[in-house]
Amino acid sequence: MSGAGSDIGTTDSGEGVRTLTAADIATASGGELRGDPTVRVGAVAPLHRAGGTDVTFLATSRYAPLLAERSPGVLLVTPALAMTPGTPRSVVVVDKPLEALLGILPRLYHAPRGPSGIHTTARLGRGVSLGRDVAIGPYVVLDDGVTVGDGTRIDAHVVVGAGVSIGASCHLFPSVTLYSGSQLGSRVIAHAGVRIGGDGYGYVFGNGAHQKIPHVGRCIINDDVEIGANTTIDRGSIDDTVVGAGTKIDNLVQIGHNVRIGTLCLIMSQVGISGSTRVGDGCILAGQVGVGGHVEIGDGARIGGQAGVFGDVPAGETWSGYPARPHRESLRASAALFKLAGMMKRLERLLAERE
Amino acid sequence: MSGAGSDIGTTDSGEGVRTLTAADIATASGGELRGDPTVRVGAVAPLHRAGGTDVTFLATSRYAPLLAERSPGVLLVTPALAMTPGTPRSVVVVDKPLEALLGILPRLYHAPRGPSGIHTTARLGRGVSLGRDVAIGPYVVLDDGVTVGDGTRIDAHVVVGAGVSIGASCHLFPSVTLYSGSQLGSRVIAHAGVRIGGDGYGYVFGNGAHQKIPHVGRCIINDDVEIGANTTIDRGSIDDTVVGAGTKIDNLVQIGHNVRIGTLCLIMSQVGISGSTRVGDGCILAGQVGVGGHVEIGDGARIGGQAGVFGDVPAGETWSGYPARPHRESLRASAALFKLAGMMKRLERLLAERE
Amino acid sequence: MSGAGSDIGTTDSGEGVRTLTAADIATASGGELRGDPTVRVGAVAPLHRAGGTDVTFLATSRYAPLLAERSPGVLLVTPALAMTPGTPRSVVVVDKPLEALLGILPRLYHAPRGPSGIHTTARLGRGVSLGRDVAIGPYVVLDDGVTVGDGTRIDAHVVVGAGVSIGASCHLFPSVTLYSGSQLGSRVIAHAGVRIGGDGYGYVFGNGAHQKIPHVGRCIINDDVEIGANTTIDRGSIDDTVVGAGTKIDNLVQIGHNVRIGTLCLIMSQVGISGSTRVGDGCILAGQVGVGGHVEIGDGARIGGQAGVFGDVPAGETWSGYPARPHRESLRASAALFKLAGMMKRLERLLAERE
Repeated sequence: MSGAGSDIGTTDSGEGVRTLTAADIATASGGELRGDPTVRVGAVAPLHRAGGTDVTFLATSRYAPLLAERSPGVLLVTPALAMTPGTPRSVVVVDKPLEALLGILPRLYHAPRGPSGIHTTARLGRGVSLGRDVAIGPYVVLDDGVTVGDGTRIDAHVVVGAGVSIGASCHLFPSVTLYSGSQLGSRVIAHAGVRIGGDGYGYVFGNGAHQKIPHVGRCIINDDVEIGANTTIDRGSIDDTVVGAGTKIDNLVQIGHNVRIGTLCLIMSQVGISGSTRVGDGCILAGQVGVGGHVEIGDGARIGGQAGVFGDVPAGETWSGYPARPHRESLRASAALFKLAGMMKRLERLLAERE
Repeated sequence: MSGAGSDIGTTDSGEGVRTLTAADIATASGGELRGDPTVRVGAVAPLHRAGGTDVTFLATSRYAPLLAERSPGVLLVTPALAMTPGTPRSVVVVDKPLEALLGILPRLYHAPRGPSGIHTTARLGRGVSLGRDVAIGPYVVLDDGVTVGDGTRIDAHVVVGAGVSIGASCHLFPSVTLYSGSQLGSRVIAHAGVRIGGDGYGYVFGNGAHQKIPHVGRCIINDDVEIGANTTIDRGSIDDTVVGAGTKIDNLVQIGHNVRIGTLCLIMSQVGISGSTRVGDGCILAGQVGVGGHVEIGDGARIGGQAGVFGDVPAGETWSGYPARPHRESLRASAALFKLAGMMKRLERLLAERE
Repeated sequence: MSGAGSDIGTTDSGEGVRTLTAADIATASGGELRGDPTVRVGAVAPLHRAGGTDVTFLATSRYAPLLAERSPGVLLVTPALAMTPGTPRSVVVVDKPLEALLGILPRLYHAPRGPSGIHTTARLGRGVSLGRDVAIGPYVVLDDGVTVGDGTRIDAHVVVGAGVSIGASCHLFPSVTLYSGSQLGSRVIAHAGVRIGGDGYGYVFGNGAHQKIPHVGRCIINDDVEIGANTTIDRGSIDDTVVGAGTKIDNLVQIGHNVRIGTLCLIMSQVGISGSTRVGDGCILAGQVGVGGHVEIGDGARIGGQAGVFGDVPAGETWSGYPARPHRESLRASAALFKLAGMMKRLERLLAERE
């Protein structure tokens, strides 16, 4: 994101502080500038704590009284509210002020880089290979043969197993664990407590015990994947577990062994995907969805929150419910069920009369 | 809790060991003392391993035979079982012995304080401010500008981002991560592996990729909140994520960006709350509940286990089911459904005859 | 697992590299050897990247064309595909090639032992007792009075509370936390981020607040239990939380206070088991199952994925659904519901006519 916005005059002080003028904001958001185009802001804030160097927004009349109390630098506002008393010297009128503001955020903020270098307390094994401008934090442990690409940042307490390769410009937040057998592409972000490449859940019952199946497959996370806090992704048993480029995974998600996830998917929090399942490109799995093992979810499919997917889902379809069905069917079933409750007595009476 | 019980004669040796007499226990539990009031106990134990310095309980006749094998110091017992052969010298008769025992626990135990001081391996950044009687464990990392209130205990391997403020008398268990932008009140307990203030899950699709929305809001955890192991609470995007005072959160819970949770809520394990949702004061969300984004749950509402909440829930109501409805409706629907399965053939026949 | 296979000629170089001949593989898998019995392999690989020192498998004709591109050392193949063009010099014909291969894995791989010894950065409290051949990784913290059995391996960043006992031949992966009050048997595996023995979720409302119930019970993990990444298991309140021998627990599972789980259970990912519930021996709980508090699940019961268990489940039965019922009833109810949606209009018309 750090290159974004250069075409519209973002000023970067070189110390990570950027500013935008009201005119820049109008251009970036496609909005209509009213008032002083030269007012300059350096941060985004909610209206209730916005000051003169902040850009903020007003989207409902409910919060309009706050304008009298605050003096934001620039206000993004809907056409309907543009004439609210108390608006500041620089106003940008847009249909959706919040969305416009979210679009402006990357122009004002870039991820803090911090200094590069290897903290004296980091422990590096034999044959570790580090790219340029790498930052390795306190108490990081990199086992033998780990490779780290240029510009990658590894925060405090991260532990990386032997032979793991990490691409360029990645960011591993504190306390991430990469087991041996993991491979990360470039620009991968793994939030605190992520566990990648652990043994999958596989046993064969024999001799009165669940015998553990050794896991020797890899866990491959491709470019531009982001992984939320405390999410777990297991390595493959024989073949690999793979997460496709540009896929974004939320917190506390579980991805089992041998799963293949395509590119540009959105996997929301607490989703669980069982072993050997395949998820196509551009799929959306909403929060707490569970997917059984050996299932195929086609490209572009969308699965509603908490759905339980026990069979294949065709490409492009939206499914929901437990067990999951096409969303329209699930809605009809749900509506019918609640109607049924009210009809039950009459139905029972009718059947009794007839029989 | 450490001040509790001083009015009823708890004796604290100064080394964390406290004792109670049978008379103290009767007073504290509102029970009827039978036998020797002077018997003194120092611990609570289940009957099957209770000894002469333990207080224990008997609530069902099923475990009565154990009395012959054990000699507990004090027995809490129901009226019906008070005459069971083998009861010890000191008996306290109460209607609900287990509840009474749980009420006595805080009088015998207080959280171990451990020594205060900063472990030599802790790494403190520039401008870190520590209150009095702070305990900082091995390998803790406090980034620049962190402030820690009096009496707070930070266990091994905790990592705290730049500028985070932590109130007084907090306890951060091992391997907690507080991202920059987090603010903790006083007496907050965060169990092992908690992640507070990570970036929320927010992207805007553009240029063929999910573009990450920078997160610049805060994550505010107010006084007396307890957070279970491996729970994740994201920071706000522009505005803040807030957890109200006295709310208790269980293990493996996910709380999304911009969520506002009121005071004194109970959020049980594996609950997921999506972005920008508001939960009122005094709400109870049972295990594995999922709440969609931008939902309002009114004060005092209760949500049954595994419910999927996709719309607003009025204050004071109890909802359950998937999708969640008022609990009574859900029960009726569920009952109707299972009746329906048994009626289906007859209904189909009836319709076929009529048409 | 490391002793497995000694009867069939596994060759161990002493550096953790083992090899098997085609004849060994035929014997181990009960398959029929065709071709050269002396070909020797040292690794398992999927067909698409198998080479001359790998054993691989072919189970469907879909991947048969890959044979022409690869030259695996030994191929496990179904009878129907045994004559596929391009099979290598050594073929073993078995009914289920993948299962056969999984059975061979433990003969080729054993968990890497790594060197024993205590890393110089590990911090050991007073009275810590270590067995023979123990490996303690970087930045491990063992509090006072911890005991560790022979051959146990404790990876980087593990934190173990005062008085915890850990049996022989255990493996604690990075960043595990064992709270004070935990007891581990032998051969226990705890994956990265596991939290054992944290306070359970228990409060009594009083004086306008949720008063925390101190937890003084233990958390006992018996022999041969494996626990997946980021799973949390709370200690008991007064009595203990117990996981029976040989039970295997997947990632991100939550087990509440006072829960008792029997032997040889399979608890799959994201399952949540509420306080004081009892699970018998040999039970299977599939992914995302939720079990309410104080429930009894009988020996050998199986619970389908995402089921919500709010009452007792008899031994040996298979239950599913929300709320959970016997699996056959749940299937019938689900089928009836989707039929109902299509019948609703006709039913309403029928009732209207009759009344």
